[in-house]
Amino acid sequence: MKKKIVIVGLGLIGGSLAKALKVQDDYEVLGIDTDEETLLDACSEEAIGGKATVSDLKEADLIYLCVYPEAAVEFVRQHGELFKKGCIVTDTCGIKSAVCKGMEQLKERREFIFVAGHPMAGKEFSGFSASDPSIFVGASYLIAPCGAPDWAVEEVASLARKMGFGRIVMTTPQQHDRVIAFTSQAPHALACAYVMSPRCREHKGFSAGSYRDVSRVARINDVLWSRLFLDNKEALVTELDTLTENLKKIRDAVEKGEEDALRSLLRKAAKIKEEEG
Amino acid sequence: MKKKIVIVGLGLIGGSLAKALKVQDDYEVLGIDTDEETLLDACSEEAIGGKATVSDLKEADLIYLCVYPEAAVEFVRQHGELFKKGCIVTDTCGIKSAVCKGMEQLKERREFIFVAGHPMAGKEFSGFSASDPSIFVGASYLIAPCGAPDWAVEEVASLARKMGFGRIVMTTPQQHDRVIAFTSQAPHALACAYVMSPRCREHKGFSAGSYRDVSRVARINDVLWSRLFLDNKEALVTELDTLTENLKKIRDAVEKGEEDALRSLLRKAAKIKEEEG
Repeated sequence: MKKKIVIVGLGLIGGSLAKALKVQDDYEVLGIDTDEETLLDACSEEAIGGKATVSDLKEADLIYLCVYPEAAVEFVRQHGELFKKGCIVTDTCGIKSAVCKGMEQLKERREFIFVAGHPMAGKEFSGFSASDPSIFVGASYLIAPCGAPDWAVEEVASLARKMGFGRIVMTTPQQHDRVIAFTSQAPHALACAYVMSPRCREHKGFSAGSYRDVSRVARINDVLWSRLFLDNKEALVTELDTLTENLKKIRDAVEKGEEDALRSLLRKAAKIKEEEG
Repeated sequence: MKKKIVIVGLGLIGGSLAKALKVQDDYEVLGIDTDEETLLDACSEEAIGGKATVSDLKEADLIYLCVYPEAAVEFVRQHGELFKKGCIVTDTCGIKSAVCKGMEQLKERREFIFVAGHPMAGKEFSGFSASDPSIFVGASYLIAPCGAPDWAVEEVASLARKMGFGRIVMTTPQQHDRVIAFTSQAPHALACAYVMSPRCREHKGFSAGSYRDVSRVARINDVLWSRLFLDNKEALVTELDTLTENLKKIRDAVEKGEEDALRSLLRKAAKIKEEEG
């Protein structure tokens, strides 16, 4: 018998996940979305086999929560009592501490297994219409086991591999949020601050790769990213303060005309980048 | 008779320029470099027809200065008296005010024509071995005429088109430096400040496009970029201060948990980016 997977939230990530899983023969993939239009699109594009009913939620072997952090916890608060014993619940949220804490509290009274996940993939467009399983190919899939048994963690990892992810990385919610503040959130904050320069209006014809790369993610979903930033406040503020301090060192060396100090700062950065290999 | 072009400095840009011009039938392309090894490589790869002698400098129709800003001015100070009347001297430096000012002073006593240029192309590797004319394809070529006659400006533009540049943009040294501080220098300063975070060491497995894009140009040539930064001190400091202020607005909204203010900042950035088309 096919395993039953329910995907909650068919946006960019949920939609891509559905498309990537639907082609696997061993699974029946069903979906839930608050937007009827999205559900219809997902059905007609055959990204899902159909809308998940209450009895599907009861029978589900695996539930992917592909919604905002708060909504993920809220979905389980409302429907968690339906999930069968041993059902694996996993999420795809960009922050982990807040989600894991919420799930931890809910698990006490329920029998599902929670494994936190974060597919490190995306693009600067959102919604089901932008979904595309090729964004997963070769990317990292981060997993915070959160006390789940090994077989459940392995199941989530195995599905990620089937979806095309190139690397499974085990982490803790705390490490995840600290590093993600650096690798993902700070660049988004940075890109937004960058394009706010009055000189941005003049960039056409004067820009090449540097402008394109730094400004790319300024095309941001403000609702989603405000939530992610606020849910990871401490780590992100630390990261932005570190960045501002380092930027100030470069700025001050430029202003004071200290060529040696400036070169030494740039050389330090170049060395870090070169050594990442 | 073929026109004679001398390229001074056969690094990434000079080397790429030589390779792009060498395939044109109407030009004899010769080179000069302080490094004998580089000259030999350029000759054996047939990027240049040979080393330019003093008599080549006397006969040159066009001289490309593909060296650091100070060295470009210095080269003309030392050899400018050799150049024939009507010889077009042009540079490829990343900043324009300082170079144009230097050339302006030298022109008074000489008969060459100076046209300032800036091919907006590059990569995070330097030297002749990294040179590759394909980096020019479709890129912008910025020209500040600096009082040169139209036919000379058109000659520089026409050669840029032959090299594959997709867009010729006319500018002034002042506009150039103000906008370049934003589109090119700030992203380089930013990338360097960014990778200096202690969390950078942990990025592997936790990073995707955002990290890759923002950190890319941290692999910087510290000698070149220190000079470019210092030669454009005022505009760059203004740009970095603007960036820091805007970053602080985002940081403060996150720290104070002001979701509405944060969303409005991110929405503003997204709108700027979306409208760039």
